[in-house]
Amino acid sequence: MVRRACLVAALPFLMLSGTTSRAQASHGARAANPTVWIDRYREPAARLIGEAVGSTFAWHRLAVLTDTIGNRLSGSPALDRAIQWAVGEMKRDGLENVHTERVMVPRWVRGAESAEIVTPLQQPLMMLGLGDSVGTPSDGLRADVVIVHSFEELDAKASQARGRIVLFNVPFTTYGETVRFRSTGPARAARHGAVAALVRAVGPPGLRTPHTGALQYASDAPKIPAAAIATEDADLLQRIADRGERVTLRLKMDAHFEADVESANVVGEIRGREKPEEIVVVSGHLDSWDVGAGATDDGGGCIVTWEALRLMRKLNLRPRRTVRVVLWTNEENGGRGGQGYRDQHRAELGRHVLMLESDGGVFRPLGFGFTGSDSARDTVRTIATLLSGIAADQITVGGGGADIGPSVQEAHIPAMSLDVDGSKYFLIHHTPADTIDKIDPVEMAKCAAAVAVMSYVVADLPERL
Amino acid sequence: MVRRACLVAALPFLMLSGTTSRAQASHGARAANPTVWIDRYREPAARLIGEAVGSTFAWHRLAVLTDTIGNRLSGSPALDRAIQWAVGEMKRDGLENVHTERVMVPRWVRGAESAEIVTPLQQPLMMLGLGDSVGTPSDGLRADVVIVHSFEELDAKASQARGRIVLFNVPFTTYGETVRFRSTGPARAARHGAVAALVRAVGPPGLRTPHTGALQYASDAPKIPAAAIATEDADLLQRIADRGERVTLRLKMDAHFEADVESANVVGEIRGREKPEEIVVVSGHLDSWDVGAGATDDGGGCIVTWEALRLMRKLNLRPRRTVRVVLWTNEENGGRGGQGYRDQHRAELGRHVLMLESDGGVFRPLGFGFTGSDSARDTVRTIATLLSGIAADQITVGGGGADIGPSVQEAHIPAMSLDVDGSKYFLIHHTPADTIDKIDPVEMAKCAAAVAVMSYVVADLPERL
Repeated sequence: MVRRACLVAALPFLMLSGTTSRAQASHGARAANPTVWIDRYREPAARLIGEAVGSTFAWHRLAVLTDTIGNRLSGSPALDRAIQWAVGEMKRDGLENVHTERVMVPRWVRGAESAEIVTPLQQPLMMLGLGDSVGTPSDGLRADVVIVHSFEELDAKASQARGRIVLFNVPFTTYGETVRFRSTGPARAARHGAVAALVRAVGPPGLRTPHTGALQYASDAPKIPAAAIATEDADLLQRIADRGERVTLRLKMDAHFEADVESANVVGEIRGREKPEEIVVVSGHLDSWDVGAGATDDGGGCIVTWEALRLMRKLNLRPRRTVRVVLWTNEENGGRGGQGYRDQHRAELGRHVLMLESDGGVFRPLGFGFTGSDSARDTVRTIATLLSGIAADQITVGGGGADIGPSVQEAHIPAMSLDVDGSKYFLIHHTPADTIDKIDPVEMAKCAAAVAVMSYVVADLPERL
Repeated sequence: MVRRACLVAALPFLMLSGTTSRAQASHGARAANPTVWIDRYREPAARLIGEAVGSTFAWHRLAVLTDTIGNRLSGSPALDRAIQWAVGEMKRDGLENVHTERVMVPRWVRGAESAEIVTPLQQPLMMLGLGDSVGTPSDGLRADVVIVHSFEELDAKASQARGRIVLFNVPFTTYGETVRFRSTGPARAARHGAVAALVRAVGPPGLRTPHTGALQYASDAPKIPAAAIATEDADLLQRIADRGERVTLRLKMDAHFEADVESANVVGEIRGREKPEEIVVVSGHLDSWDVGAGATDDGGGCIVTWEALRLMRKLNLRPRRTVRVVLWTNEENGGRGGQGYRDQHRAELGRHVLMLESDGGVFRPLGFGFTGSDSARDTVRTIATLLSGIAADQITVGGGGADIGPSVQEAHIPAMSLDVDGSKYFLIHHTPADTIDKIDPVEMAKCAAAVAVMSYVVADLPERL
């Protein structure tokens, strides 16, 4: 999951997977304005970039994760296996202080689920229950549909919602615009007495592809079952309703929570040579949804940030400060990993120089989003010039991530996110199609190079960022 | 289904559905060379085109078919409903001699089905059983996989195939190139003692999207169960095998045949004003696979060819000869509709002037493929100049269709197929994503216009084609 609104460029990609044409953005516009201090980083930056893009190591490591461990929902045995695998691999890489940090996580179980039109024409809908949803009665529920296209329309149709299934049929524009119907729509429908909620898949039109994702119930509304349906199915229900016909659906979901179980963040470090107590965190989340391998969300983010440390170790580059990789647990449905880190590291949060999260896919890197002081941004911008050769030198305003959020907010830590070409991301986001074949090994290597250079230089600066 | 090899242009479209950019092919290259006789058809052609593209009637009729009747596999009650619906609508349109022509069709039932990796990692594969496949034993079958990439490799690995599941992992290039692994691969694997066959989906990479379609067993090989798996899953199995790991799968399919049932071709006509016994047939097939609404394959082909007659009726254009629309039954898994027509109309096949089938989707029309004498092709080329205004004036060598095939071959009837931009077709072909939202109403109207003009003029020519 990503929390930030992200424009999805209208660049389809399905035919191009693996051979994406790499149209390079123009980077000649900004006049070079190098300061003297950056020059000393040209040589290590070139080595990091060269080592990263000289192989497809990162892609193949991700393939091992997604192929041999697979889907990794919080609380699942597969996530446990992924955690143990990461610890072993980090040690093999020669990272330091490799360990896990225990947090309790929810265990949501999807169970069997289905949705179908009962009248006017019996046919199945392509659906995925929303994460953290309650289930239906064991024999399902059956109700008429009322379709709305905004929260205002829902309020206006409040009397029609009672006893019905509310469908939020809002075409995807940006994630930030449309995800709210998934996250808060069910609670809003429940307030008006709806018995269930459906949401048009939060993603561009696919191939009958629903997208799951977490919902948030409200304390003042009943918990009702909720699911996403494919855009094609939402269109179908809309056409039937537009013909003036009554639409009755059956929804059956066995979704439920089991007791919280133990999980962990995975931590590894390159200890700083002069100020090891000052820390640069780079990170991704290791958990995924239960329906996909989580190659882009967020296996790739884990591997490319971890790669930053592996590359430093391999090249014997030890910065002044400590670079720490954290592979978070439970980003998708709870955020317990990020909260646990904040609580367990409270004493040293003030010595966190920068926290970076990669959770928008590992497609062609563009640069970084950054939140911090103006002077820090100037420094980061200068560092980014080292990435102009791989066209990853843009610094945009606003960086962060769901997992670094709790620490960043508590201690006002500068925050950064890896920015990539987002045109593919939301087509496969939270679906079974989030598989590694959608990721180009060379683009992924560039992502690792960008994170490695940025984190190394920030960790090595004479003065703290 | 289409039988002809069709290059799939590398034009992705998912983001564009409904708003496809209509880059027009260049049509200025061919020098205009009008003959006198064609001039008399300019006015009726203009009226037919204007009436067709002046509304979205065809698209909405297709929506009614796919939304209110839905999937229409041969032998299903839904196909019966579609047949009755078409008869009623044709009569309402004012077509003449509207009736059904009985044929017996097979009734294949998919039943429950699943495939999963058992080792090295338990996980589900996205699969669709192939049409006409036998089922597995009721508790499924479990076997190791042997992966091949050609029939030659299968023969070379014959000893490994015994007792195993053979996966044909051949990336999609063209339908003609790769469909043979679906159609004859299972029989070839069975000859070497395989217990089941899987085929990489016959279509470009989608979103974890398997494609079904018919297989053909051989009389000299056992019938083994066979299914398609998504390209992503084929890639996954390949990566695991490439790591030297043994891959064991479980396959469970309840597929079976029930007794043949009665079905029918639907026929309607505009009777010729001078030579009603001479006939121009335009056609599409009304049956679809069981997993999709069959909007492009071939609901659209039915509607646009039927439209040709509705438009003539509406404009009071009655050609010299009879124009007959036939909506075929059982194209997908048997061809009984086309065979039945040949048998039932044998006495009048010699008076069939032209048979046209539209079964490649109703996307942006390009023109027609044509099989016939050189002089007939010259005539058809001249008629096609009437379609230059909608850029549908190309006549390519080779036209036909699965349903018109039996009659065409028996009586050497000139044969024609509607040619369209094929870039979208095989991405949704034989999948649940074959839905009407993939079809642009304006492009579809142009398809109807092209068929109407071509069939009207051929039927009205002073001399037989």
